[in-house]
Amino acid sequence: MTADRTPTPADSPTPVPTRWVGPLRISGNAANGETHVPLATYESPLWPSVARGARLSRLVADGITVTLVDDRMTRSVLLRTTDAEGAHTAARNIHARMEELRALTRESSRYAELLAVRHEITGPLLFVRFEFATGDAAGHNMATLAADRLLNHLLTRLPDITYGSVSGNYCTDKKATAINGILGRGKNATAELLIPQPLVARHLHTTSRRIAQLNVDKNLIGTLLAGGIRSANAHYANMLLAFYLATGQDAANIVEGSQGITYAADRGGDLYFSCTLPNLIVGTVGNGKTLPTVEEALTRLACREARPAGHNARRLAALAAATVLCGELSLMAAQTNPGELMRAHTHLERRNGAHHVH
Amino acid sequence: MTADRTPTPADSPTPVPTRWVGPLRISGNAANGETHVPLATYESPLWPSVARGARLSRLVADGITVTLVDDRMTRSVLLRTTDAEGAHTAARNIHARMEELRALTRESSRYAELLAVRHEITGPLLFVRFEFATGDAAGHNMATLAADRLLNHLLTRLPDITYGSVSGNYCTDKKATAINGILGRGKNATAELLIPQPLVARHLHTTSRRIAQLNVDKNLIGTLLAGGIRSANAHYANMLLAFYLATGQDAANIVEGSQGITYAADRGGDLYFSCTLPNLIVGTVGNGKTLPTVEEALTRLACREARPAGHNARRLAALAAATVLCGELSLMAAQTNPGELMRAHTHLERRNGAHHVH
Amino acid sequence: MTADRTPTPADSPTPVPTRWVGPLRISGNAANGETHVPLATYESPLWPSVARGARLSRLVADGITVTLVDDRMTRSVLLRTTDAEGAHTAARNIHARMEELRALTRESSRYAELLAVRHEITGPLLFVRFEFATGDAAGHNMATLAADRLLNHLLTRLPDITYGSVSGNYCTDKKATAINGILGRGKNATAELLIPQPLVARHLHTTSRRIAQLNVDKNLIGTLLAGGIRSANAHYANMLLAFYLATGQDAANIVEGSQGITYAADRGGDLYFSCTLPNLIVGTVGNGKTLPTVEEALTRLACREARPAGHNARRLAALAAATVLCGELSLMAAQTNPGELMRAHTHLERRNGAHHVH
Amino acid sequence: MTADRTPTPADSPTPVPTRWVGPLRISGNAANGETHVPLATYESPLWPSVARGARLSRLVADGITVTLVDDRMTRSVLLRTTDAEGAHTAARNIHARMEELRALTRESSRYAELLAVRHEITGPLLFVRFEFATGDAAGHNMATLAADRLLNHLLTRLPDITYGSVSGNYCTDKKATAINGILGRGKNATAELLIPQPLVARHLHTTSRRIAQLNVDKNLIGTLLAGGIRSANAHYANMLLAFYLATGQDAANIVEGSQGITYAADRGGDLYFSCTLPNLIVGTVGNGKTLPTVEEALTRLACREARPAGHNARRLAALAAATVLCGELSLMAAQTNPGELMRAHTHLERRNGAHHVH
Repeated sequence: MTADRTPTPADSPTPVPTRWVGPLRISGNAANGETHVPLATYESPLWPSVARGARLSRLVADGITVTLVDDRMTRSVLLRTTDAEGAHTAARNIHARMEELRALTRESSRYAELLAVRHEITGPLLFVRFEFATGDAAGHNMATLAADRLLNHLLTRLPDITYGSVSGNYCTDKKATAINGILGRGKNATAELLIPQPLVARHLHTTSRRIAQLNVDKNLIGTLLAGGIRSANAHYANMLLAFYLATGQDAANIVEGSQGITYAADRGGDLYFSCTLPNLIVGTVGNGKTLPTVEEALTRLACREARPAGHNARRLAALAAATVLCGELSLMAAQTNPGELMRAHTHLERRNGAHHVH
Repeated sequence: MTADRTPTPADSPTPVPTRWVGPLRISGNAANGETHVPLATYESPLWPSVARGARLSRLVADGITVTLVDDRMTRSVLLRTTDAEGAHTAARNIHARMEELRALTRESSRYAELLAVRHEITGPLLFVRFEFATGDAAGHNMATLAADRLLNHLLTRLPDITYGSVSGNYCTDKKATAINGILGRGKNATAELLIPQPLVARHLHTTSRRIAQLNVDKNLIGTLLAGGIRSANAHYANMLLAFYLATGQDAANIVEGSQGITYAADRGGDLYFSCTLPNLIVGTVGNGKTLPTVEEALTRLACREARPAGHNARRLAALAAATVLCGELSLMAAQTNPGELMRAHTHLERRNGAHHVH
Repeated sequence: MTADRTPTPADSPTPVPTRWVGPLRISGNAANGETHVPLATYESPLWPSVARGARLSRLVADGITVTLVDDRMTRSVLLRTTDAEGAHTAARNIHARMEELRALTRESSRYAELLAVRHEITGPLLFVRFEFATGDAAGHNMATLAADRLLNHLLTRLPDITYGSVSGNYCTDKKATAINGILGRGKNATAELLIPQPLVARHLHTTSRRIAQLNVDKNLIGTLLAGGIRSANAHYANMLLAFYLATGQDAANIVEGSQGITYAADRGGDLYFSCTLPNLIVGTVGNGKTLPTVEEALTRLACREARPAGHNARRLAALAAATVLCGELSLMAAQTNPGELMRAHTHLERRNGAHHVH
Repeated sequence: MTADRTPTPADSPTPVPTRWVGPLRISGNAANGETHVPLATYESPLWPSVARGARLSRLVADGITVTLVDDRMTRSVLLRTTDAEGAHTAARNIHARMEELRALTRESSRYAELLAVRHEITGPLLFVRFEFATGDAAGHNMATLAADRLLNHLLTRLPDITYGSVSGNYCTDKKATAINGILGRGKNATAELLIPQPLVARHLHTTSRRIAQLNVDKNLIGTLLAGGIRSANAHYANMLLAFYLATGQDAANIVEGSQGITYAADRGGDLYFSCTLPNLIVGTVGNGKTLPTVEEALTRLACREARPAGHNARRLAALAAATVLCGELSLMAAQTNPGELMRAHTHLERRNGAHHVH
């Protein structure tokens, strides 16, 4: 497979405007301290939006608390049989071979570990979903390589089973589905901030009650009416795209990454605000991470430290979640006030020399 | 709202590796001829994957046919009342004011036109979804600006109605929902290629029948089992991200953009292969389009020509859809063959100097 | 098509236990006054649950207000072409023939009226969704008959179009989808009750705040996490099944009927509680309505009166929505109190002679 | 909680017209032999539709093969904490207590067994989903009773955890969601029939190829476009409703029961046709099963035999799945032929004395 392209001057990289915003103050089981975060985006209003959230984080003792509750990468393979009985027999056979499959996984990479196997049968089709630990890599390739090896092994061991696909879309990669949130894929993190009432008034120009109500009416009910799936937020995709690009991630994973839930509550005037992101697919090694700009960004984020396997990537996920909270909080506050959003955009783009809104 | 950031050397742009792949041969109601397309991505295997599809397009008389069947941008506002009767009365009032709202929209921008208004009532909440034509702009800002004006107008005209939000998530922007496909948002395009049987064998190393079967088992059933919503494809998100970044689009719109449907059929040995993308949010003017690299890319793609309003953007959408088809076809073909995928990835990344798969 | 069955004594009807509960007090644009409602169910705890809500309705001046905001029945046909361009041409042709299609619809039944036509293209497939007014019938047959006629007409008028199916599942009948809520199918009704704080305490043993919070955490977030689609309620299906069976409806329509949204708010201690049901498929004539028990039930509900076409069915929909509210309110209140649910069930089943919980 | 109702003559049961259709020939791991099945419905065309499928089952050696691959009942509780860290700590605590929870479950009923526990965290909310074996009962009450006991136990053992709800809608009962198919709820059964080409022609008046194509275009793509969730079939809800009513089931469970997938393939002219139903909630003991008509029906279906716990209910699930296949096959065949559907309905209703289609 060779790319039949004529090299041209335009093969130079696409420079995406980037700013380091913050610092964010952060605490929790995966990252602690203060850090600026890089945001690569064509949408310049994103920077001050995240910056406003960051400022609030520094006004609260523990800042944004991020709790990381799960970490795994998946790949599903598709097998074909003649009927459901054949699929059922094969599934039992596969589960009986867990030790064998674990050993094979370890051989495929020194960082890969098989955590669990689940399956589903539909007529003569058998979908097998492998869940892996993948160290500090996001794990797309590691999971695919391992799954490929497991698949080949199973094809030679199971009678009456034929190859369907190394990916059966039951993984699920870069699609918005329910399975990733329910079974887990990527890092599952919740970012939280408890903002005293006076700070809500002074910095967000609103009240806890109005934000909590907007979250119910817009993020929960509005998204639900639109036919959304396992998602309720204002604009996680914006922050994730910018953070992913600046840190060398496969930003197509914002599709599932942006499925997450904003929860806001009026706690006696204070604002409890949280963003739960069950599917953060990030790594600190792998594709894209050796580019100098990316490497520099990861280093500055303290995500290239000597730590146990996986801990750098978890820190990165925590920073991503905290960044999402900053931008989400800022936009939600703005939308409680008629007119603020457009004023901010128009002002900002003018300040940044962008075209006027047209 | 000021960004409290300390300028640092790292505020330089993030350079995303980019190649021009092709040329693709394309025909249809929005673009014709041959053109290379730029793909900005950290995932280098994407380039030869799209290139393989492009090569096939040049071996067929009309190449990839793209049919654009719809074009609109939306914004929903959220209004609150005391009860459903109030919401019902307000909704009727709004529909009765269509001419008034159309005139207001035209005042907000010379390119904006109000095409339709739909609404939904839930308890005391009223979601109003405005659909606009936005010329060659993707239209986020134009639609928001117009919606803001319409909203303010309605708030002063409708009794017992209070402000909820300038966006009620019923739009829906950068979220995977059903509404955008059903009611329309962005450009709706289908890219199709009819590949004679000998070319399927020689260039894709597979058969029409195997691709059609894989499409049913993986893209349709696999995605469905995973709990997907209005989407059935292998990896639209990858091509869209790379194309959007290289052409200055707001790439967070790949979230809904990647919701699309691959349809494959064995037509007497020949392969009918199509990608329907109902939600392509692209523009040739607006945010990000004035950056020199982007401007150069759009110019080279012949999307900055003197054409009637909207035609440059439609051409760009057609190129995006054709690019998606190239990459989708290539991956689907590869997945019909055990082992091909990993061989391709491993080979490619080595060739591109990327880390080995780990 | 003949049923090859041997008649047996068991061919006697299945008697489903039924009670008339209430009366409910109701107001709004489709029904007013007090009425008992019949509930046919094997689940006897449903009766006192709805009865508790009914009692509350009688303690509030206007009782439950039901606002009916839409009324239509749909059928989608599936057409096949060779490519998207063919489908696009056909779609435009169909929309240009609206007057012709309206006339044909009127010929198919004196109650049928074609309200709107929408379509969607996917590759070579064209889905055309017809929306009808169907008088007092739920309209399954009237819509199918009309669609069949329209389909045959189009097949002879449109070149290069072939028959796909008289139903393309884009209607959508008896499946939980997003389209019915977004585009409308059946009667769309919101039932609301504003309960003064003292009544909340005395009759529901809870507070407005606790119910509102439970609605967010359970109905909205719990359902969302479970991967639900356009639905957020505790148990609409229970009330609808019992009401549909007792009134001769096609109770398989509870599948989409149960997709609805409960909205609860603490209004200064008082409880605003509403149930929005966008897809009530009910009729007062047609299949099942001539059985004596059913006819008697409909008569007693005052749904066989001399009224303009459609008004009896709308009254029935309003009663269904009010009944749903009664049961939903009662269960939600119960679930705010640990242990109440099980006590109620165990007590009730014992009282009704059912098996103890086992 | 007392029902404030005035007893009336109308409190007599609602008699739902019922016929025993068949016999169906069936084989597999849960039921074998030939049996008629009862269908209680107001929609009389259902009887000959299922009868046609049943006739085909008798013309094939093994008839319809049903493979039951899973069996469990679920209930999720909702717990509240102050933040995600608290929820995470509680979740780990719960998983560490599995033995304790298993013992408590056994105490709650001699048939209940705790199979697994899963959880999900969203902000300060903790959803815990218990999976139980429930013997021959469908298990709603058994699962609720056990969950209530487990919940009370946990509330006294876990610090900083407060009661949310005995059901957090993450179960999920009588709602169409993705979780039940992915994690399992009820009995998961696939019914399959391989029909030789001549029988397809003679009895279904169609071809395997046409049915397979219709299944892709209508059931898979049509449902997907409509915004369906984890479901692809023509009308499972119809058969399930009639079967559930006649056998005393809680028929509101057709909401999730009707989420299933039809898979059809042209195997060299022969038709492979299957219906996968992952969420059959049926029992042979419990609510409704002691009514004489129901008891007689269950006895006649040989589902009240002396068998190991759970085996009667599994047999019933197998019969339900086979019945669904009969009706689904018949309608799908009919829809491949323009006009057949309406002819069948009109003829049938006339024969059954129902109103003509209007």
